[in-house]
Amino acid sequence: MIIGEVISRVVSTRKYDSLQGFKLLVIQPCFGSKDDCFVAADELGAGEGELVLVARGQAAQHALIKETPIDALVVGLIDEKPAITMSNIDSKNE
Amino acid sequence: MIIGEVISRVVSTRKYDSLQGFKLLVIQPCFGSKDDCFVAADELGAGEGELVLVARGQAAQHALIKETPIDALVVGLIDEKPAITMSNIDSKNE
Amino acid sequence: MIIGEVISRVVSTRKYDSLQGFKLLVIQPCFGSKDDCFVAADELGAGEGELVLVARGQAAQHALIKETPIDALVVGLIDEKPAITMSNIDSKNE
Amino acid sequence: MIIGEVISRVVSTRKYDSLQGFKLLVIQPCFGSKDDCFVAADELGAGEGELVLVARGQAAQHALIKETPIDALVVGLIDEKPAITMSNIDSKNE
Amino acid sequence: MIIGEVISRVVSTRKYDSLQGFKLLVIQPCFGSKDDCFVAADELGAGEGELVLVARGQAAQHALIKETPIDALVVGLIDEKPAITMSNIDSKNE
Repeated sequence: MIIGEVISRVVSTRKYDSLQGFKLLVIQPCFGSKDDCFVAADELGAGEGELVLVARGQAAQHALIKETPIDALVVGLIDEKPAITMSNIDSKNE
Repeated sequence: MIIGEVISRVVSTRKYDSLQGFKLLVIQPCFGSKDDCFVAADELGAGEGELVLVARGQAAQHALIKETPIDALVVGLIDEKPAITMSNIDSKNE
Repeated sequence: MIIGEVISRVVSTRKYDSLQGFKLLVIQPCFGSKDDCFVAADELGAGEGELVLVARGQAAQHALIKETPIDALVVGLIDEKPAITMSNIDSKNE
Repeated sequence: MIIGEVISRVVSTRKYDSLQGFKLLVIQPCFGSKDDCFVAADELGAGEGELVLVARGQAAQHALIKETPIDALVVGLIDEKPAITMSNIDSKNE
Repeated sequence: MIIGEVISRVVSTRKYDSLQGFKLLVIQPCFGSKDDCFVAADELGAGEGELVLVARGQAAQHALIKETPIDALVVGLIDEKPAITMSNIDSKNE
């Protein structure tokens, strides 16, 4: 799963019927390239600025009542950003 | 899902029969590397220059009537480009 | 799907029986990093230098008669390289 | 599968019920970009600083008793970091 | 599929029972970033230094007798490295 921040919302009037009822959120990844924003569906009520846990691929289907053309789903809201020793993250530059 | 712009169309005469009837669109991602263009199938009538929402992987099958060798599908047309605070996007360069 | 060019062929004598009968082609992507070559199976008779449309992941199975350990399949031959306004592609460097 | 190091833990109070009972670990990849941290579920009791083997995508489901919206799972604890001739790894810079 | 070279082996004593009996090999990709090493399961007896063809994702399951939490599998040994005109590969730098 990916940790990301909700940074916007997508409005799509013309779409497959099976996508009705989902909020579509633009997610910015917390790790890796912050440019690689993507869209995740949400049923948990995540708001802008919140940190969320996103499942991608077929795994997203296992949380849904019926199969939906969704490849990313908010599966949890994160209580607080996990404490990470940034020296580890930066160690590749050593 | 990915937000992308339709920038061209692919013509393929020799292909599997199950691909007949789909428009095949070249999609340029709006986020991340703009070089990473790919091809998505379309049943919604997206035109060149339009912003679309694309589902990738097995999720695409869940919008189709029968299984098709398609790994990316336009699942929605986007009303307008989502407002994003670019300072967030650029923060990795700070 | 990915647009790529067939640049070579792979010969593998020792492999799973279910891979018998497929041509295994080295594909160079037309978009993104041209270093990211990969191998796709082919039943359509694509030759070296031809542009092809490749489906990746589980989608490849939906074109095959039986399940096969193939994660990329040539699903179409492309009539001609799609016309793309390169200024769009290069816009990220502006 | 990916070899990674457990560098933190994620706490999520509000999540799908099917995620209850899994530890959610932040994994830093040992190869490739060390920035590309992600979250994997764990049932094996991996602790911080341990090297683990992570299966991603639908493969993770094949270790679980029921389908769960998890796209990455710790499937093994690694006894010791594999000995790799780093000159190979660095050969791309030659 | 990916062409890679077997560069090491992973030993994991504590793992899911369904992974018993597979060799776990560290694979270095021949194309793209050579840093992006990953682990593939092997039933064909590939040895260190050999070039192999690896199927990733759900495709790996189609070679196995029962479902296993494996997302990469050696599906063939490659007879010799495919001849590739490197000028093509380097053309992106022109």
